[in-house]
Amino acid sequence: MSIKHKVIFDTDPGVDDAMALYFALAHPDIEVLGITTTFGNVTVQQATENALYLTRIAGRAIPVAQGVSVPLSKAPGLPPGFIHGDDGLGNLPTRVSVQGQAEACSAAEYIVKMARAYPGEITLVAVAPLGNLGLALRLEPALPQLLKKVVLMAGTINEPGNVSPVAEANVWNDPDAADLVFTAGWNLAMVGLDVTHRVVIPSGFFTQLAAHQQHIATDTLKHAADFYCNFYSAIRPDLGHACYGHDVLAFVYLVAPELFTTAKGRIRVAKEGIANGQTMMDKHGSLFYPQPGWEAEKPETHACLQINAEAAMALIDTTLKGNWLLPALTA
Amino acid sequence: MSIKHKVIFDTDPGVDDAMALYFALAHPDIEVLGITTTFGNVTVQQATENALYLTRIAGRAIPVAQGVSVPLSKAPGLPPGFIHGDDGLGNLPTRVSVQGQAEACSAAEYIVKMARAYPGEITLVAVAPLGNLGLALRLEPALPQLLKKVVLMAGTINEPGNVSPVAEANVWNDPDAADLVFTAGWNLAMVGLDVTHRVVIPSGFFTQLAAHQQHIATDTLKHAADFYCNFYSAIRPDLGHACYGHDVLAFVYLVAPELFTTAKGRIRVAKEGIANGQTMMDKHGSLFYPQPGWEAEKPETHACLQINAEAAMALIDTTLKGNWLLPALTA
Repeated sequence: MSIKHKVIFDTDPGVDDAMALYFALAHPDIEVLGITTTFGNVTVQQATENALYLTRIAGRAIPVAQGVSVPLSKAPGLPPGFIHGDDGLGNLPTRVSVQGQAEACSAAEYIVKMARAYPGEITLVAVAPLGNLGLALRLEPALPQLLKKVVLMAGTINEPGNVSPVAEANVWNDPDAADLVFTAGWNLAMVGLDVTHRVVIPSGFFTQLAAHQQHIATDTLKHAADFYCNFYSAIRPDLGHACYGHDVLAFVYLVAPELFTTAKGRIRVAKEGIANGQTMMDKHGSLFYPQPGWEAEKPETHACLQINAEAAMALIDTTLKGNWLLPALTA
Repeated sequence: MSIKHKVIFDTDPGVDDAMALYFALAHPDIEVLGITTTFGNVTVQQATENALYLTRIAGRAIPVAQGVSVPLSKAPGLPPGFIHGDDGLGNLPTRVSVQGQAEACSAAEYIVKMARAYPGEITLVAVAPLGNLGLALRLEPALPQLLKKVVLMAGTINEPGNVSPVAEANVWNDPDAADLVFTAGWNLAMVGLDVTHRVVIPSGFFTQLAAHQQHIATDTLKHAADFYCNFYSAIRPDLGHACYGHDVLAFVYLVAPELFTTAKGRIRVAKEGIANGQTMMDKHGSLFYPQPGWEAEKPETHACLQINAEAAMALIDTTLKGNWLLPALTA
């Protein structure tokens, strides 16, 4: 018997966020209770607008709570419009009109409220800078016990970074919040570049998907993915016109952890200087180090280091091509 | 025809420093012109005393210039007496009386003076915190052009650190000086934990060496190595009573680079926070990163990533067991 995962999805859509969201909506074992938004791939206002848009065009009136607009302490930067488009969805030429508005409470308050309402039942899947989780931890110190699990698309251990040789973008965008999250003591899994760079999705996949199931949602994803693949094929021409899986792999891990090889150990985040945003893992375990910050009592994280990429891609394919979409909206 | 390498040896002896020094004195292709000392495994005063002692008991009146006593900017720490002994040589019960005193000039001045006297001829082999090299670079900005080569025992790329999960001790002891060295633009090779942790030397080797060539120098090394192996067998009982090769591998690289696999890339040092002292390598090369400090014009380092450990050990064995020592001093 499969378990239905009750999920809050923390996101900054963002093209790969959109794919991840649709995977979650399509998968029979995932129930998205709510969405929380943050700055990152786009401004938080754009992220909220996109979360409302992506859910509504797919026929799902899921609550959306808007979250933090800037990092906890680092100076804010500009969203990378050249990666996701200025609108986060590859600069959509038009948008249909949709109903719905954000919740009255903030993302952090929403997370705390839901965790208290369903103690021990909710999995938080976070694929963006981690300010909402950091703030929720401050609002409710017992949050690690109230949540069932936290799965992050964040960081990197052995694979080179994507915003510096050692740092991954979600962590680098708010290193202080990330370090709070990695040391909070919840049941924590990290899905980072070590595995997301192994899953390369050609733009043709999204074309096939849109042809297979004609719908504004699949058309929107195809348009966004095409723009996203333009970016990746510019920096990695050897991949062809394709993109990395990134955010969707957090949900793949949730429903199919057997496709991943993980290691367990203390992870800390560099919060300053040239290493800023690096996720560092203590692979040795219990050694004594003269450098402070690596004390043995720090909580451990399950970090994904390897993935069965072929099986992951097959799961993404069958899930997104399933019969999950309501009849197409009329534009 | 073999090349005789003119070397200045920058060192903080230290047990593995002593082994490295004796390897250099024993090897027919190495000519140690002078020794510069620094704090690190011991205080700089003790390092100078040990450099004079180790050379004089081996019958070699090599100049010794005393260097820096504290890091460039980091707060000074205490020497790790539990690793090398309070005297740096495993707490020798007695020392014979030797002649000799340190040069009148500082280590940095000595390096600059010699580099100007032998332009393009000298290789600097540094196996300690890098304050003397940092200071010499400030005294003579053309130093990178005046030296033939710089070989460091320092840092780590893929192997876990020894003072934190990501930092190696020599770099961690003076991260600011190390970053100056890695960005100075000389012909630079890094021999770090990636290879020094692959060469494990049992204490029995030093016992054999002392029996093979009975001499106060080999006895001193055996005593020191025994203490050093006590430390390593406490933290790595799986290795038996043994130690890592560390400093001697810098000289092995100098005379037998074909035993190493290297990668070339920009290396920077984390100078603050929990990543302090980490050597980070840009494995991608020319990618653009939003994190400052990784600009493409930064100079590159040859980092040793793999080693033929068996061949390296054989070279250490044959070199140290060669007929290089003068008749034993009378204690």
